[in-house]
Amino acid sequence: MSEPGSNGVIGAHTWAIAEGYIPSDSSGEGPALESHEAACLLNASGDHADVEIMVYFSDRDPAGPYRIVVPSLRTVHMRFNDLDDPEPIPRDTSYAAVIESDQPIVVQHTRLDSRQPALALLSTVAHPSFHPA
Amino acid sequence: MSEPGSNGVIGAHTWAIAEGYIPSDSSGEGPALESHEAACLLNASGDHADVEIMVYFSDRDPAGPYRIVVPSLRTVHMRFNDLDDPEPIPRDTSYAAVIESDQPIVVQHTRLDSRQPALALLSTVAHPSFHPA
Amino acid sequence: MSEPGSNGVIGAHTWAIAEGYIPSDSSGEGPALESHEAACLLNASGDHADVEIMVYFSDRDPAGPYRIVVPSLRTVHMRFNDLDDPEPIPRDTSYAAVIESDQPIVVQHTRLDSRQPALALLSTVAHPSFHPA
Amino acid sequence: MSEPGSNGVIGAHTWAIAEGYIPSDSSGEGPALESHEAACLLNASGDHADVEIMVYFSDRDPAGPYRIVVPSLRTVHMRFNDLDDPEPIPRDTSYAAVIESDQPIVVQHTRLDSRQPALALLSTVAHPSFHPA
Repeated sequence: MSEPGSNGVIGAHTWAIAEGYIPSDSSGEGPALESHEAACLLNASGDHADVEIMVYFSDRDPAGPYRIVVPSLRTVHMRFNDLDDPEPIPRDTSYAAVIESDQPIVVQHTRLDSRQPALALLSTVAHPSFHPA
Repeated sequence: MSEPGSNGVIGAHTWAIAEGYIPSDSSGEGPALESHEAACLLNASGDHADVEIMVYFSDRDPAGPYRIVVPSLRTVHMRFNDLDDPEPIPRDTSYAAVIESDQPIVVQHTRLDSRQPALALLSTVAHPSFHPA
Repeated sequence: MSEPGSNGVIGAHTWAIAEGYIPSDSSGEGPALESHEAACLLNASGDHADVEIMVYFSDRDPAGPYRIVVPSLRTVHMRFNDLDDPEPIPRDTSYAAVIESDQPIVVQHTRLDSRQPALALLSTVAHPSFHPA
Repeated sequence: MSEPGSNGVIGAHTWAIAEGYIPSDSSGEGPALESHEAACLLNASGDHADVEIMVYFSDRDPAGPYRIVVPSLRTVHMRFNDLDDPEPIPRDTSYAAVIESDQPIVVQHTRLDSRQPALALLSTVAHPSFHPA
């Protein structure tokens, strides 16, 4: 059961993250300890995955799609901080995200908050949808 | 697959959060760092969602319903701290919540605890129920 | 859709928590800030729930069953620290738990770790099993 | 419903953790407070479980399989830090993991980050796959 790529379908085509917020402040040094929010994408399938991300807000139309490729048998730990096409994600602003992929992937959501001089972490597997995208 | 509102059903009509607790103390300054608990609601559907929240306690009857609207293609990061109709949520008290929506939504639960001078975070996608409300 | 007890089945009869660990040290004062681990149980059904908990270890037979009642339309935030019948949960020891209920409930797992002078939190909805207990 | 091993199937055969990262730094003393990442495995079945773990990276082929046995009615809190056969997991590097078991198990993912002088925690139940491995 251990051949890479030989396993069955792992994951889903559509994932949602309802809690998004990038603090503008950081007390850590360097990118590792900068306040950030990430969607960690795992593609354990045999084909590369084309992924599109829509970002939702409380008071304006959604932004996106943001496009990212996750190669076969690879993981991409994508920081929302780094998205800038078609537009950057505003800081200190509540948002949410829907992630759609043409291959099954697994999505886990993580935030590192270093606004205060001791970092805090949160993480949860995102909500999968098994309906066709 | 990237047209807002064109995607399939994302989420569920009923969600549960079993762990609720709003600390009465905070060491941070301003509302961003005040100890708080939130239910982040994402409505990725094409229709606005009417949402009702019932809050459960250990030793009294439930409170609610609290009513909130999540417009189409919007997210609402609702703080339990701010609920006051029909009654505020008591602090330093264990509670739980059931969230029902007439449209499919996604719910993620987050707490920021700043009782001590370094904040702590927790978050998890709430428990969805796929039975009709 | 807001009548307490009128909603459909919320939750599952069997839940698992694979990550259990109660630190023996605390730096906070009082029970609220004592290092602890909790299973938060929500019974949104119309009948009281009889719950049994088995605790699993790495190197000995399971402990339990621990018995607890969750009344109808109530939540119980049960601390593993407080269990003592048939035996207390050892500190600084890895464990896991399976929670079975004769009514559908929702279980969320939370730890507050105050070993260092700034508390840390983790929480996740437990893993539900939809097979009959 | 409380006989150990008498309960129905608990868990799944395949689990994914999309967010993996072992910080190389720690400020705590001793193994309990060393920065670490763990997969907590619960085998509530009546048979011992042979488990294989594949680890995925952003820019190289997967590592593994790592093999581990979880005895019947036992939990193993496996630290990724301790894996070294066929190769250790690099520090300060994004990774992901797929865990396959010949018996149903439950997997929960936890990180303790003590890079700064107040530890941070994250935890989530991993993503189960109900397709055959």
